Parts: sequence; C-alpha cells; structure tokens
Amino acid sequence: MSMENGNGSMRRKKWNFLQGNKEVNNNNNGSSAISVRGVYSMMLSNINEEDERDVVRLCRADPTDFPCFRTTQDAPHAIAEAVESFRFNSYAPSGGLFQARRAVADLVSSDFPYKLSPENVFLTVGCTEAINIITTVLARPGANILLPRPGYPQYQARAAFCRLEVRYFDLLPDRGWELDLDSLEALADDNTVAMVLINPSNPCGNVFTYHHLKKVAETAKKLGIFIISDEVYAHLTFGSKPYVAMGAFASIVPIITLGSLSKRWVVPGWRLGWIVTCDPHGILQDIGIVTNIKTYLDITSNPPTFVQAAVPQILEKTKDDFYTKNLNIMKEAAEILYDRCKEIPCLTCPHKPEGTMTAMLKINFSKIEGIVDDVDFCVKLAKEESVVLLPGETVGLKNWIRITYVVDPSALKEGLSRIKSFSLRHAIQLP
Amino acid sequence: MSMENGNGSMRRKKWNFLQGNKEVNNNNNGSSAISVRGVYSMMLSNINEEDERDVVRLCRADPTDFPCFRTTQDAPHAIAEAVESFRFNSYAPSGGLFQARRAVADLVSSDFPYKLSPENVFLTVGCTEAINIITTVLARPGANILLPRPGYPQYQARAAFCRLEVRYFDLLPDRGWELDLDSLEALADDNTVAMVLINPSNPCGNVFTYHHLKKVAETAKKLGIFIISDEVYAHLTFGSKPYVAMGAFASIVPIITLGSLSKRWVVPGWRLGWIVTCDPHGILQDIGIVTNIKTYLDITSNPPTFVQAAVPQILEKTKDDFYTKNLNIMKEAAEILYDRCKEIPCLTCPHKPEGTMTAMLKINFSKIEGIVDDVDFCVKLAKEESVVLLPGETVGLKNWIRITYVVDPSALKEGLSRIKSFSLRHAIQLP
Repeated sequence: MSMENGNGSMRRKKWNFLQGNKEVNNNNNGSSAISVRGVYSMMLSNINEEDERDVVRLCRADPTDFPCFRTTQDAPHAIAEAVESFRFNSYAPSGGLFQARRAVADLVSSDFPYKLSPENVFLTVGCTEAINIITTVLARPGANILLPRPGYPQYQARAAFCRLEVRYFDLLPDRGWELDLDSLEALADDNTVAMVLINPSNPCGNVFTYHHLKKVAETAKKLGIFIISDEVYAHLTFGSKPYVAMGAFASIVPIITLGSLSKRWVVPGWRLGWIVTCDPHGILQDIGIVTNIKTYLDITSNPPTFVQAAVPQILEKTKDDFYTKNLNIMKEAAEILYDRCKEIPCLTCPHKPEGTMTAMLKINFSKIEGIVDDVDFCVKLAKEESVVLLPGETVGLKNWIRITYVVDPSALKEGLSRIKSFSLRHAIQLP
Repeated sequence: MSMENGNGSMRRKKWNFLQGNKEVNNNNNGSSAISVRGVYSMMLSNINEEDERDVVRLCRADPTDFPCFRTTQDAPHAIAEAVESFRFNSYAPSGGLFQARRAVADLVSSDFPYKLSPENVFLTVGCTEAINIITTVLARPGANILLPRPGYPQYQARAAFCRLEVRYFDLLPDRGWELDLDSLEALADDNTVAMVLINPSNPCGNVFTYHHLKKVAETAKKLGIFIISDEVYAHLTFGSKPYVAMGAFASIVPIITLGSLSKRWVVPGWRLGWIVTCDPHGILQDIGIVTNIKTYLDITSNPPTFVQAAVPQILEKTKDDFYTKNLNIMKEAAEILYDRCKEIPCLTCPHKPEGTMTAMLKINFSKIEGIVDDVDFCVKLAKEESVVLLPGETVGLKNWIRITYVVDPSALKEGLSRIKSFSLRHAIQLP
C-alpha cells in the first residue's frame, strides 16, 4: 500500500479533523449524551458469558421476543399488502401520506371535543424522531425547556445537541408521581418555550388523572408555554385510572402530542411515529411553529412510504381483544412486580404501576453493602445474575433503577427471583 | 371555549416562543435551507389546474410512477416475508442488523483490493439521513467542508443547520464536469475537515474516470481531509465509462461512502441507506469519527428492522437482467434528451449523460425574452406547459436547470416537446 504507515501519533497529526475535536465531543454533536440504547449496550457487555442461564432483559420497553406479546396478524399483513402492491415505492410527501395522516388524526382525536385534521399530523421515523424534530424546532439561542425528572433521556440528549437549555421539574413518588407544579412554576422564565409531559408516565408507570392534567394545562397557560405530551404509551393503562389524552385540554393551551405504533401494537422496530398539533385556536400555526416543522421535515427522512400506507388498515382492523389481551398480561406483570418487590430487601416500589411498561424502584442502601450507586448495582447484577436493568441515573434519578416489567410473566418472575438472590448475597452482615 | 380569543396580534404576545423567533428561522434549525423537496412542492403549486394534459415531472429522481421502472418482484417479496415472520418487530441495534450490514459490506467492497467488514457499515433512513449524520459528526466550531458546485442541496442545508461552513469548488462543464482541483486546493485550509464528491455525478450526469478519481484522492490526502463519496447512483452508468467506487482509493485517503437502495432498485420511498467507512488503515477509527457516528446513531432512528432484515435477500436475489433492463431504458432516455435538446433553442446540454438520472442544461437567455432567471423559467414552464423542472439555483448553478430525464421515454418526449413549444413561444422576436 502506498500510504506511509507510521505509528498512531504520527498518523494522527495529519488529519485536519483532529483540530478542536474535543469540542465536537462535548459541544456540538451530542456525543456525550446518555441514551437508553447506549446504556443498554453497556449493560449487556457486562454479562458473564459463562453463566448458562438466559439473560433476563428488563431494561428496554421491547417485549417482542415473547410470543405472548406478538403483534396482531393484521398489522404485518397490511405492510405486506402495501409493499406488494408496487403502489408505494415513491417518495412520500414531507408530512406523510394523506390517508395515513387522516387515520392518525382520527385515532388521536377520537375522544376530543374538537376534530383534528390530517394537516395536524406529521409522520416521523418512530417517536425518537418526533422528539428530535420538535426539540430542534423549538430551539433558539437562550431558550430553555422544562423536562420531568425522572423522564426519558432522549429529550435531554437532543436538547443538548441543539443547544436548548434543559431545566428539570420533579415528579413526586409520595404523590403517585404527580408533577410538582410549584417547582415547575418556579423554574420557568420568559425564555421557557415548552414543557414535556410523558403521559402515561414513562418511567414511573403512573397514570395522571383528568383533574391533574387540567391543572398542568392551566399552569402552562399561565406561564405562556406549550406542552409537548409524549403519549407513546397512550391507552396502555390497566389500573383504576383511564388514559386521558392531553390534547383534550388544547383549548386551554396548545398541545403537541407525540406518539407511535411501537408500544400499543408491540412493534417498536417498525419506526412509525407522529407529531400531532392539538391546537383548536391555531396558535402554533400563527406563530410559525407549524411552518418550522414543515421546513425541517423537508430535510429529514420520513418513514417508508409503504409503512405509512399500511397505517389506516392497521388502525382500522386491530380488534379490541388484541388490546385487552395485552393489557391483561401487563396488569398481571405489574402485580407480580409489586408483590415480589416486597420480598426484595434492597428495593422499594413506591407506587404500583397502572400503565406503560416501566416502573421506578428505589435502592435501599441501608440493606446492602459493597455497592456504591445505581450504576454499580446494575453492572454487578448483570455480571452476577445475567439480569439487565436500567440505572436510574439514565432517566435522571440517581440511586433508583428503572425496570421494564412488561415481559413474559415467567421471565419476570425469574428475573425478580435472581434480583432477590443478589440482594440477599449483598445484604449487610450484622456484626 | 375558555380561552380569550383576542385578535392575532394580542394573542401573539402571550407565547414565550415568539421571543427571538427570527433567530430560529435564520440560525438554528435551518428553516431557510433549500431542499429539492421544498422546491418541488413550490413548482407543483404553479401548475395551471385548467390544463387538462398530464403533468410531466422531470424534477425529482423518482421514476416509480412508470411501469417500466418497477422494482424487481423479489424486493417487495423479501420485505413481506421479513415482516410476516414476526421475527423482526423489535428495535434493531444502532448500526443495524448484523446480516444486513454484512450484505452491504460485501456489495460495496465487491471490487475493492481489500475486504470491508459489517463493522464498517451503518444503516440509515435513506441516504438523506446518511448525509445528515455524517455532516453532524464532522461539524465543530470553525470547521468547513468543501462541496461541489453544482451539487446536492441536502449537504448545504444540513451543514447550515449544524454550523459547518461550506465552501464550493467547481465542476467544469467544458471538461465533462470533472472537478476543478486547483480551485479545490485553493479553498482548503487547516479547518477543512472533508470534501464531498457525488459519484457518479448528480446533478451533472457524468461519470468520473479511474484516473480522475485517483487524482481527487491524492489531492485530499495532500490537504489532510477525508472524502465523503455519495454513491447513491452507484452502478447506474450506461455510457463508455464504468462506475468506479471511490472506496477503491481508500489506501490513499479515508473514504466515507454513502449509498442506498433507492436508485438502483427503484425504491426511493423505502428509505434504506448506509454510511460505509472505507478505511483499511483504520484512521477514522483512530481519530474518533467512528465513535462519533456510533454515539450519534444511539439518539437517532434507524430503518425499520424488517426492512433491514430483507436487505440480504434483496441484494442476493436481484438478477442482472433487472439492472440491465433499467440501464437500457436510461441510456435510451439520455439519448432522447441529448438529441432533442439540440432542437430547443433556449437550452444547451453541454455533456451527454452517462450515468445517474439527471443532467444540467444551460439556459440561453440570448434566445428568449420575458424570462429573468432559472426560477422564472421553471415557474412559467410549470404554469404554461405543466412541465416541472428544477431551477439550477437549487443545486448551486444559477441560470441553469436540472432535468431528471429518467422517466418513461414517451413522457420524456412529451415533456421535451412542450419545453420546445415554450422556448419558441418566448423566442426573442426579430424587429
């Protein structure tokens, strides 16, 4: 080969990219951002390969490996039909195919006091891209956004990336994880552009009441900020409280609802999400946010056209018994989690999950020794028991853990049993 | 409704987002960026609805509406099989499914003097997202990137978005659209991180020789910059020059190759693209670019898992006669374009297309009157003749136009015949 093959340091000097590379990592491209994906990979790398037991993955909300969480037959069939029709191989319009946008508008506004139109809907490559787009569109120098703590790290990662300052308001475990509205009000200033709500709540697993959500809307209105309501877990509730769409309060304050097929249809890998502007007074249109979304979509990839084309059929054909069956398994899993946690000395579940696929568990350091924090807890658990959890730090709550309990109930029992063994093995020894 | 419904200006004052909104548009989110998509929509909006003739769309490289450019039966079949297997509903790993990465590695390096591994490949949501990722990963304060003029506006749009300065080197129509390497050298400085090459060349339709590409690689090496080789039109050559993959020169300088299924398989709406690091000396790995790509992918959506899963079968099963048939139609279309252009007084095609789906035509303003520039030309043509072209300004060459001639030959003839009528109607009248 013709290239001089000096040692690493000599070679390094040659490339202009290295000038100021540190800034790239820390400043511009969000390389230092925490992501569930990144932490998940890191945790998996700690698994002891000599452990012959199956790995129990309680880290990500993706139960597709378990036959009990198979998506409905109608969904892949709709995709196959669309792609084999040869009618959806072309580029889709930026916001998405009209018929798919209409189907999502109808789905999201089914219980609203007003009607959404297809123009309110923008299809995105999963909810991840919906978050990326809306964060980018709201960013401007000096602006800030209010995020829940604990929350979902994608918001923080993308905000850092587009230089949008983040400020955290607390979710309160002793109030069923409701928002601390006083601390939220105290955080906001004239540069606050929006607040994020995850409804139903990932990672806490609680479901907000109508009354509480109305108060959230009124608070946002008072502060002059919009609400981004991340409803990727819409309808996935199995406790006593029903799911209430935040868009129901859009006559109080404009709501930007994010969602996807991922969770309810158990197809996270299909990457079909949406941004919906719930805004009966047209405020988001008037002040330019809708235009900014459209322009940004012009330079962004959208979901495959044939996947978009399948959306109306998927939404129309999925039968209620599919949803009911899944909710029953989720409810059973939530009960297993809540009951068995009581037998694990080092963990506390402060609130029985009522929705979503995740819950927050507090680590009781007074009951264990030799473990310094939540990351250490999860790394040692992966090494010793081949169980993968998400350190709470990833979602903003140090020394807690996030558990995804929506897996096959037998896998959940196995995982919790191993966590119990781990807890007992590391229990503080009395002198 | 409970909200006070004042007039527009009263309502506007209330929302914090409005503070400094101008900066959002011009600075941070690239709203002012030019995109083929955006210009295409704008041109379509000029069509006279009373014209009963079919609209002839020669604006975007998407011939999927024409039965002669149907994708191979095996491709949708592979997708249908993957989605109906229920095995690919989960999240994919950040870089993509291993088997799909391996298939792309084999495809891209089939003629290379070295072997690519699956780790060199990162699957993306179309080539658009590949461009977005690589531009972002290279950006840092003060850095610049060298782009071809004419080129593809996505690079400029995304560079503006992540504050990467762009500098343009010329492609020379009188030298068969080869790169002006002297001007390229003069542009580069210590802050230049990379140059972009579109190979084969969109929008010019030329194919670079082995000899010229080697000189490009040597120039980049001398400047200490990488080459991003956009090979979305790989293998789509039908003149005397064969397609030469830039990765063949990666022992001279690291090459980052971008590609997708879109053009060769005639499925632009499928949104399956890739970034491939062609780098036998591991320089991109050593200096952190590979790590930056991986970290950015952790917070970015990737293509649907079942689409990724179909890739090996699509690549393996597509028969040579599919490619040959398409190339023959493209060659026929290129000849129709080149020959009929000679009969259109106001347009000159300086170089007979040898590859891709597009060509650049120069507007001869000495032959027409009442038309001020390329945008005016395209708008009036859309209004009067229902033919949609792309103003050259969009791709960096004012007062030229970009034509996509890869459509059904009869549609192309119809379009060119209408352009000829337009040209004659606007011809300068002798006194």
